[in-house]
Amino acid sequence: MQRAAALVRRGCCSRTLGPWGRGRSQSSAAAEASAVLKVRPERSRRERILTLESMNPQVKAVEYAVRGPIVLKAGEIELELQRGIKKPFTEVIRANIGDAHAMGQQPITFLRQVMALCTYPNLLDSPSFPEDAKKRARRILQACGGNSLGSYSASQGVNCIREDVAAYITRRDGGVPADPDNIYLTTGASDGISTILKILVSGGGKSRTGVMIPIPQYPLYSAVISELDAIQVNYYLDEDNCWALNVNELRRALRQAKEHCNPKVLCIINPGNPTGQVQSRKCIEDVIHFAWEEKLFLLADEVYQDNVYSPDCKFHSFKKVLYEMGPEYSSNVELASFHSTSKGYMGECGYRGGYMEVINLHPEIKGQLVKLLSVRLCPPVSGQAAMDIVVNPPVPGEESFEQFSREKESVLGNLAKKAKLTEDLFNQVPGIHCNPLQGAMYAFPRIFIPTKAMEAAQAHKMAPDMFYCMKLLEETGICVVPGSGFGQREGTYHFRMTILPPVEKLKTVLQKVKDFHIKFLEKYA
Amino acid sequence: MQRAAALVRRGCCSRTLGPWGRGRSQSSAAAEASAVLKVRPERSRRERILTLESMNPQVKAVEYAVRGPIVLKAGEIELELQRGIKKPFTEVIRANIGDAHAMGQQPITFLRQVMALCTYPNLLDSPSFPEDAKKRARRILQACGGNSLGSYSASQGVNCIREDVAAYITRRDGGVPADPDNIYLTTGASDGISTILKILVSGGGKSRTGVMIPIPQYPLYSAVISELDAIQVNYYLDEDNCWALNVNELRRALRQAKEHCNPKVLCIINPGNPTGQVQSRKCIEDVIHFAWEEKLFLLADEVYQDNVYSPDCKFHSFKKVLYEMGPEYSSNVELASFHSTSKGYMGECGYRGGYMEVINLHPEIKGQLVKLLSVRLCPPVSGQAAMDIVVNPPVPGEESFEQFSREKESVLGNLAKKAKLTEDLFNQVPGIHCNPLQGAMYAFPRIFIPTKAMEAAQAHKMAPDMFYCMKLLEETGICVVPGSGFGQREGTYHFRMTILPPVEKLKTVLQKVKDFHIKFLEKYA
Repeated sequence: MQRAAALVRRGCCSRTLGPWGRGRSQSSAAAEASAVLKVRPERSRRERILTLESMNPQVKAVEYAVRGPIVLKAGEIELELQRGIKKPFTEVIRANIGDAHAMGQQPITFLRQVMALCTYPNLLDSPSFPEDAKKRARRILQACGGNSLGSYSASQGVNCIREDVAAYITRRDGGVPADPDNIYLTTGASDGISTILKILVSGGGKSRTGVMIPIPQYPLYSAVISELDAIQVNYYLDEDNCWALNVNELRRALRQAKEHCNPKVLCIINPGNPTGQVQSRKCIEDVIHFAWEEKLFLLADEVYQDNVYSPDCKFHSFKKVLYEMGPEYSSNVELASFHSTSKGYMGECGYRGGYMEVINLHPEIKGQLVKLLSVRLCPPVSGQAAMDIVVNPPVPGEESFEQFSREKESVLGNLAKKAKLTEDLFNQVPGIHCNPLQGAMYAFPRIFIPTKAMEAAQAHKMAPDMFYCMKLLEETGICVVPGSGFGQREGTYHFRMTILPPVEKLKTVLQKVKDFHIKFLEKYA
Repeated sequence: MQRAAALVRRGCCSRTLGPWGRGRSQSSAAAEASAVLKVRPERSRRERILTLESMNPQVKAVEYAVRGPIVLKAGEIELELQRGIKKPFTEVIRANIGDAHAMGQQPITFLRQVMALCTYPNLLDSPSFPEDAKKRARRILQACGGNSLGSYSASQGVNCIREDVAAYITRRDGGVPADPDNIYLTTGASDGISTILKILVSGGGKSRTGVMIPIPQYPLYSAVISELDAIQVNYYLDEDNCWALNVNELRRALRQAKEHCNPKVLCIINPGNPTGQVQSRKCIEDVIHFAWEEKLFLLADEVYQDNVYSPDCKFHSFKKVLYEMGPEYSSNVELASFHSTSKGYMGECGYRGGYMEVINLHPEIKGQLVKLLSVRLCPPVSGQAAMDIVVNPPVPGEESFEQFSREKESVLGNLAKKAKLTEDLFNQVPGIHCNPLQGAMYAFPRIFIPTKAMEAAQAHKMAPDMFYCMKLLEETGICVVPGSGFGQREGTYHFRMTILPPVEKLKTVLQKVKDFHIKFLEKYA
């Protein structure tokens, strides 16, 4: 150290820089560094401060399969295709994530018109924008500091947008009241879910907070639980019964969990991700009663509330059912429910818009929550504006109503078609079973994996379904996520695939999966 | 419990809903609930699951003064003004936060044009947008999935935007290379800072990670340290020496910290927030050498890099100085530096755009970092696009160059004027001393508080500077943040005030502070 320090003092600072170009990859940097190392050993690389050994072990334990190893592999294959390397396919199809616009879905015109007007208010004078869009843009801008999307909003979100969200919830729930004070705008639903969990987790050893999550789950939950060093408490959805949630299973999970932690939170995803089931009203009542009885804080992830396809199913919000169960519930059960701009018919993932409604929160905790949110200043104001348009769309009589309705119904109608198509085709394949896609945006079929394939997977140090999905990717270019990334009953295997590709493309994808699966069964028979 | 359950079973679910209207406040809900309580004791409020006692104690310990009690009070006063309650002023001036547009600063036209084009690509056919704006919008959209801002981006950010950031850094640093692989787009700088800290913190007891931060600091740091249950290690800036950073003080702080924790991280804010100093090149070299010697991971908060006003000062990036110190440093010191769309001349806080450049990160940690980011999917794509325009502005010869330069220089020229004006005026007031505002957006004057005022503060259970700021707010409507929210040497008192109001308004504000201060001294003499 002394020596290098002396070098600096002698003016080593003014040395000529090497010929390192822009855009150089890290691996070439490493190669160059090690070349330097051979010549001048005193300039050796020192040990890093931040290593796998020294890093936050809770972050190390995080897993997030939706963007995990299979997606990294997909990226590599795309680069190979670009470099002209021959493959049995010409493109990678990223069916791993619910990213509607990336799959070709067009943005809702009205939403983007309002957003453009808010972004560049000079356009408010342009005759090419409809009056109803201008009206909404003016309203949003008037509620922003300096009439600009570029100002920070209140940490809880722009006031008038929270009012619009509350009005939307009241309409959605047939008149059950919603209070703008209980609405918090968020950076996508993920942000809301992790914020609420962050405030809930406490205790050490056997009194560490346990968080009940469905298996299969959306892996944001397990990741945040790991980050917070909370205890993940699994309850299994009933695959044989269309992934229904059974309260007896909740009871079993809770009983076992109480032996080693303090279960305080119950998370529900409805409509289900990755499982696609839509919960019945009866089931929601039972869950709420269970939470009430067992003193659990309820988290209802309802980001797919607009994505219900099965004619026998209807979305019931936890909030509405809770109120309809009477005041013993409606004034006691603590419930946070989440929505987002990313799903539904709008699919505006990139704006990171979302909200949560939190009811029966202790007033002192409300203050704590706002304080915690204020550290990050505010959610993106553009995302807040996008959320506003989702909850406050054109109404009959307004100029944009007809086009908006046509666009919305086209997206949702297509999704319903694709849900049916996917279910039907998967169920024609021997060794694949797919529950009805009642809602959300994914199929989560169960796949039979022959013993020989399991042995091959083991030889590659992969979970059997990861092995299956890697083979599928390598042979067809289709990127799906192995069920092990969501959790599944031991000995069962699945994958999650979005149904977002356009109908004709989805048909091709499904046919390719079918062909692959049959060949896979033959190969490892 | 049994009884209420039975009520539900008997069909209590279908009861008629009360007349609760939309937008009802929480307090009225509470009043109604307690009214119900008197009539039907069996429907009493049960104890909440989430209370101050049961909540995450680390979150409870978080403080964030910039949006703390004084700002809540400001909100109350605004409501009172709206209700027609007479005050000695007609409006609240929120000088507590660096929120440029809220203070009347106009957005940079070019930035908003590109954003509008990205938002609503139909405008690409409009003759009223300049070609250079269209060119940038096309380039951003081509890099987005489905050519839409509504798609998720890669977790690290849109590739071509990371390339533009790297090219910007290379230009800024006179050719010192930047690798797009080392750039991570973030949700404002706050998100980057907390992500890096989250990955760095580990250990228990005496090996818990210590994080060195300047005092005074920007309270994001103390808040995140508290959330992560890390150990805050204070080093004091030298107020008598224009808030300079002295390496001997770093050494003292480190030595003492090693007795009770494992100091692993050194945070620097340059230009300083709240202190406004701009560090000399020599100082930065010394700090880097100290970090190298003591094996500290460096965090350089450089969000005010465009905000340097003093003609004797120049912004030097830590990255550039590090490289110029030679390979022993440039290939060894782990450094994360942060930038944002929120400050500078653009002041686009609401978009929550930002980036961090992280160099010398262990390759395995890079993977861990991307994994951690992927759990939140991606930063807002609109914020990423805004960041792109900041790092890739119009160049000479382009259609928008002249207007862009005029707007940029107007903002920065005005800020420089206001910095001088503020410093000069504060230093004319007896009992106020203000160091030169070399950069950033704030004055952080030291205020003399008489003994009698301190006693009055104690009687109100307030810190003396909180008492001072509350009085200032109540008597003038000017909202500033007490120094205790940023940290200050014991027995000294300060407040932070932005210099963002337009010149004429700023003059009035300063005059009012002066008058208030003189009266305050007289009252408590």
